[in-house]
Amino acid sequence: MKQTSEYDAVLVPSPRVVVQPEATASVAEWLRTSVAEARALTIEFARRRADEHFTTPDTAVLATALTDFVSRGKFLRSSFAHVGWLCGRPESAGAVQAAASLELLHAFALIQDDVMDESVTRRGRPTIHTLLTDWADELGVVADPGRFGRSAAVLLSDLCLIWSERMLREAGLPGDALARVWPVFDLLRAELAVGQFQDLLNEDVAGVAQETVLAVARRKSGNYTVLRPLQFGAALADCRPDVVRALSRYGVAVGEAFQLRDDLLGVFGDPATTGKPVGDDLLQRKATSVVVAARDLADAGQLRRLTKLHENRPKSGQDVWVREWQDLIRETGADEWIEQAIDSRVTDALGALDTASDLPPRAHDALTLLSTECTRRRL
Amino acid sequence: MKQTSEYDAVLVPSPRVVVQPEATASVAEWLRTSVAEARALTIEFARRRADEHFTTPDTAVLATALTDFVSRGKFLRSSFAHVGWLCGRPESAGAVQAAASLELLHAFALIQDDVMDESVTRRGRPTIHTLLTDWADELGVVADPGRFGRSAAVLLSDLCLIWSERMLREAGLPGDALARVWPVFDLLRAELAVGQFQDLLNEDVAGVAQETVLAVARRKSGNYTVLRPLQFGAALADCRPDVVRALSRYGVAVGEAFQLRDDLLGVFGDPATTGKPVGDDLLQRKATSVVVAARDLADAGQLRRLTKLHENRPKSGQDVWVREWQDLIRETGADEWIEQAIDSRVTDALGALDTASDLPPRAHDALTLLSTECTRRRL
Repeated sequence: MKQTSEYDAVLVPSPRVVVQPEATASVAEWLRTSVAEARALTIEFARRRADEHFTTPDTAVLATALTDFVSRGKFLRSSFAHVGWLCGRPESAGAVQAAASLELLHAFALIQDDVMDESVTRRGRPTIHTLLTDWADELGVVADPGRFGRSAAVLLSDLCLIWSERMLREAGLPGDALARVWPVFDLLRAELAVGQFQDLLNEDVAGVAQETVLAVARRKSGNYTVLRPLQFGAALADCRPDVVRALSRYGVAVGEAFQLRDDLLGVFGDPATTGKPVGDDLLQRKATSVVVAARDLADAGQLRRLTKLHENRPKSGQDVWVREWQDLIRETGADEWIEQAIDSRVTDALGALDTASDLPPRAHDALTLLSTECTRRRL
Repeated sequence: MKQTSEYDAVLVPSPRVVVQPEATASVAEWLRTSVAEARALTIEFARRRADEHFTTPDTAVLATALTDFVSRGKFLRSSFAHVGWLCGRPESAGAVQAAASLELLHAFALIQDDVMDESVTRRGRPTIHTLLTDWADELGVVADPGRFGRSAAVLLSDLCLIWSERMLREAGLPGDALARVWPVFDLLRAELAVGQFQDLLNEDVAGVAQETVLAVARRKSGNYTVLRPLQFGAALADCRPDVVRALSRYGVAVGEAFQLRDDLLGVFGDPATTGKPVGDDLLQRKATSVVVAARDLADAGQLRRLTKLHENRPKSGQDVWVREWQDLIRETGADEWIEQAIDSRVTDALGALDTASDLPPRAHDALTLLSTECTRRRL
């Protein structure tokens, strides 16, 4: 087993996270309710935009695709933004709408991501470009339905990007709150696109260092899922500097843990839970933290077998090939290494919360719950 | 020659437009100066965004591609927005920046359009996705450089869309001016995406009516190039209702004339002027106003020849095939019909300007000049 400083640093054993059961029960209920509220607001906003702009019969397909897609989200990003707000202000309908605007941004990101990765399923259903390809195919009016589907999906994602900003701007929050949030919103959006660009370049697993993979993952997914949404909510609510600092440390740690879990799910996840094919990241030859950890931790014989699996796309027997690769990754200890890395980050995140004085109890409990909810084992 | 109401309506002869030469000289100089100012501001803004977000070596290619691309624009949309502003307020640096934000939006539209149309050249240079494909190919780090180039171009276009909104928001204009302009900006952006979606569906020339082609063209290109930019500037400047009405009538007419000229250039244009291959719209089988007019005006024999040209993509001798198609379109009289349609719209636009009382002379002269500049013969 090779050792690098990156690997040393995380292999320090960390205590398992313990969450108080009674706090969890009441805050879990609150979280469910506020996710339902954010979901209803987002669907309603998307529906109003569809009524406004998808006014001809040929655009009806976009209205259905959009509202159906946003309704099936987990609303994790809006939850973090909402909890960030609660760290400084009491509950407010405007803050819920502002937070939910991140879900339209997320729809933009996912729809484009699926076009770029040529993914077939998402959230357990056909991806938007697959759906629009099939629609055009049945309609029989375009020469190349696949190309049409990809283009039309990108256009729908553009509208999600535009409408996300509009949903935030029209949330009914005062001008000074919006003035504080724009820099975070601008940063979040630009990081997302730049991170995705770098992700496209990280295909060559042999040449990529774990440090690079984690930095891109942090920028593309971790920051975007946890850190920036928290800062977004905190900026809207004008939170105290010590609160912003604590949320930022928590956000970095949980964001990384979230991405590491996502990478485990990309290799070992159950399609029923992930909504994607089994071994999706392997099929796509993505240089994720799990794949790179396996390479770094492999002995010479394991490394040869990994390289062979990576280079030979099976014509048939894809399941067997995925299972063999999964087993080999487990053999290197990469999965356990990633599990420990997740645990140590969640522990650090919870420690960070204690550095802020007077965090409202509901916000504290929600952050504790979310730290495990979005990084827990769902294999 | 077939006659439809659409064709009857426009075939009424209209007087050729006459512009006063002395007014033209001074306003032309002013227009050149303000385009140079808008161009400098846009490049500067793009450069600052690049410095802020393209901070790693692998993203340097995006910085060059972006600033080079925006520097080569015609700045037609920002000119219309600026003149719209001048109809209600005196010159202002903030208004120039706000107007120039439409050029970043235009960069977004063009970069994506070229990906969707698989165009190879734009503004006389390789399109952004072609450039990024070549870059990745030389670098040798991705498995499929073509797919990488298309994805990376879409990501750069996303950033242009995001930064366009930011450039407007940060133009230094008062909150009430921004509050007035957001609805126009939102409409413009959504129309652009929806129009492009409908354009993708309009491939089948046999089944498309001229009315449909013109409606999509109006929404996708005409509105977006002339009408909405004028309304955008007028909203910022809080123009009087009679001025907004006059600008709107002018904008619809000049926008349509602009699109009709663009369609003529797409068939007959000189690559040195258009920056695209000769007969580009024919090569792409686009159902433009020219192609549809030729079909509608053709006799039975001409129609058979048109259909044959449309259905047979030549393996070799592409130039001969394009020339034959061009000649046949001229034979149907479609080019002359479109020329007359352009003239009648420009005449209507200039008439509309007289319905607004007290239009500032500079704005009036600039609108007169722009109406011919953006619709004139450049074949």
